Amino acid sequence: MIVHDGPLARTLAAIKPADTEAMDLARAHQDRLTKPRGALGALEDVAVRLAGVAGACPPPLPAPAALAIFAGDHGVHAQGVTPWPQEVTTQMVANFLAGGAVANAFAAQAGASVTVVDVGVAADLPEAPGLVSRKVAYGTADLSQGPAMTSDQAVAALEAGIAVAVDLIDAGAACLITGDMGIANTTASAALICAFTGHDPALATGRGTGVDDTTLELKIAVIRRALEINGLSTPPASAAPPAVSEGVSEALRTLAAVGGLEHAALAGFILASAAARVPVILDGVIAGSSALVAVALSPHAIDYCVAGHRSAEPGHGVALDHLGLRALVDLDLRLGEGTGALLAYPLVGSAVRVMHEVATFDSAGVTDKDTRPTSP
Amino acid sequence: MIVHDGPLARTLAAIKPADTEAMDLARAHQDRLTKPRGALGALEDVAVRLAGVAGACPPPLPAPAALAIFAGDHGVHAQGVTPWPQEVTTQMVANFLAGGAVANAFAAQAGASVTVVDVGVAADLPEAPGLVSRKVAYGTADLSQGPAMTSDQAVAALEAGIAVAVDLIDAGAACLITGDMGIANTTASAALICAFTGHDPALATGRGTGVDDTTLELKIAVIRRALEINGLSTPPASAAPPAVSEGVSEALRTLAAVGGLEHAALAGFILASAAARVPVILDGVIAGSSALVAVALSPHAIDYCVAGHRSAEPGHGVALDHLGLRALVDLDLRLGEGTGALLAYPLVGSAVRVMHEVATFDSAGVTDKDTRPTSP
Repeated sequence: MIVHDGPLARTLAAIKPADTEAMDLARAHQDRLTKPRGALGALEDVAVRLAGVAGACPPPLPAPAALAIFAGDHGVHAQGVTPWPQEVTTQMVANFLAGGAVANAFAAQAGASVTVVDVGVAADLPEAPGLVSRKVAYGTADLSQGPAMTSDQAVAALEAGIAVAVDLIDAGAACLITGDMGIANTTASAALICAFTGHDPALATGRGTGVDDTTLELKIAVIRRALEINGLSTPPASAAPPAVSEGVSEALRTLAAVGGLEHAALAGFILASAAARVPVILDGVIAGSSALVAVALSPHAIDYCVAGHRSAEPGHGVALDHLGLRALVDLDLRLGEGTGALLAYPLVGSAVRVMHEVATFDSAGVTDKDTRPTSP
Repeated sequence: MIVHDGPLARTLAAIKPADTEAMDLARAHQDRLTKPRGALGALEDVAVRLAGVAGACPPPLPAPAALAIFAGDHGVHAQGVTPWPQEVTTQMVANFLAGGAVANAFAAQAGASVTVVDVGVAADLPEAPGLVSRKVAYGTADLSQGPAMTSDQAVAALEAGIAVAVDLIDAGAACLITGDMGIANTTASAALICAFTGHDPALATGRGTGVDDTTLELKIAVIRRALEINGLSTPPASAAPPAVSEGVSEALRTLAAVGGLEHAALAGFILASAAARVPVILDGVIAGSSALVAVALSPHAIDYCVAGHRSAEPGHGVALDHLGLRALVDLDLRLGEGTGALLAYPLVGSAVRVMHEVATFDSAGVTDKDTRPTSP
């Protein structure tokens, strides 16, 4: 599969590594602030990361923030992998637009805007304020019977996510937040995670929104079949990364085989944030599996990601470990929609505020144990 | 030691258990909201807890919030338990008042007010806006040589904390947040934690703001000596709680023996929030050890506490386990000042907002997998 010149190719070409010089400056600055060195734990790493994202120390405050909820349906729903009927995707889109979902409440608390994107809902949705139509298909095909998407669909969905990110950033967003809605999308997520990390479906598959033991067994079997039928059951033979063009081609093939339209769009959303040097806070297992796609397409995309939370889904832990990310919130959430990432957003803001507002030992006249003269 | 009629006695008498009826209503309400049951993990427990605090479902939004930073000095500083000079307590109070500390940045992000309380700083502090003077003493005595406080000082500091809480609640605070400042106060915290939980100092003592191996050994030895000299080295003989008046008397004796003036004030602050049925978010190991004091004085005080974060200090984990609390933020912070609790505050707000703003399955027209008719 060749990525022709277009938004995806241009986005991939624009992604640069994080600015390590700004990161070094950020580390040095933190050590001068009126607190014991390292006393802010993981938040110091977040501030350093955001300096690398922006290429500036201190990095700009990550406000305003914009949540995009990408909605799509999944052909694999027909296999009975979830007790929720497929029409709940459409119903929840209406709920988001009416402001009645948990993501809306959390976004209000966090001060983030909410955009809902139809990238693949299996129904025609009426126009509504806050709804962006980027529909690529009426849901995916059943990944356990063959590829979930055609190559063209996968690229179109990636480019839908890119377009949404570009629009939000053009409108002033200084921080993007991933959200998702799609009944059965933890099945596609687990399949992507297995394909990209080489883990067995039994280790990467969870109960999603709450399936019983029998359905969990079925879900694992369905994912195993999906990997086999799509030629993805063999983990990467070598730890050495493939040549870039080969990696892109293989990543797109994997995405099309077992991903969802919202996964593809989220991968594009992540890539576009990296290209624009804007931080993106990842939600749970859907975002984690989409980040694996993004990183397979452009390894430096990871530099621009903050792991908002660690969900109760076992595959999410697998994805975060593979990506080398530490989640900021770890409270057994398993809802999606962007809820975990929204909870993390004020923590990210707090980490960056420290860089702008906290006095140094010198400026505040506070004695620093590490630099004061030794008593004779 | 007898608690005479006064603010402490009246506060203890006013504390009632959480309202279990409101908590049951909150659990039932969460199950009707448009999300899978339990999908918000630990945040659902927070919302239920706050319903019990307020005796109402939904509980009121916990806004506005008020942080009180209780500052005090410690005679045990003379033993060399920390590399920071004692005057840093005074310098940091000035930094809080100038808005230059991490607590100020986090409070600005969270939208919380900041009050600094001198309950025991070993210097005269100039009057300043935002500084409340409730000084009981110029620091404690050295707990490794005998009691850190007299009985009267301990009660006076408890009542200072009560007065601050009452004033903040009278001024409209709907959520209190604990903060602390006091060079060497992790030593007093560890001693309190050992005394109240029966743990050995080697297990409950940490590096505080960053001491080396030699100082850590010294710190453990100092705490061991403090427990011995104050007759606190034997853990409670039985798991059965003592009679209430005996418990109060023993708790006050323990607090006076190895606590700090800010620990006593924080215990009073927690008790007053419980008496007023206002939630209080606990910061790190200083707050955790103070909560042990509060709970020893009035067991139901725990119902009104939310554990904001889990600090890197090992004694904090011991205290949280003993109190049966799960921390919301766990990011290796070890700063104090209220910083961990301030990070948790938006999470608490998000948990309660869900109860007010999220639609039910019925109201939003979303199909509920658990109540839809089974297909024939």
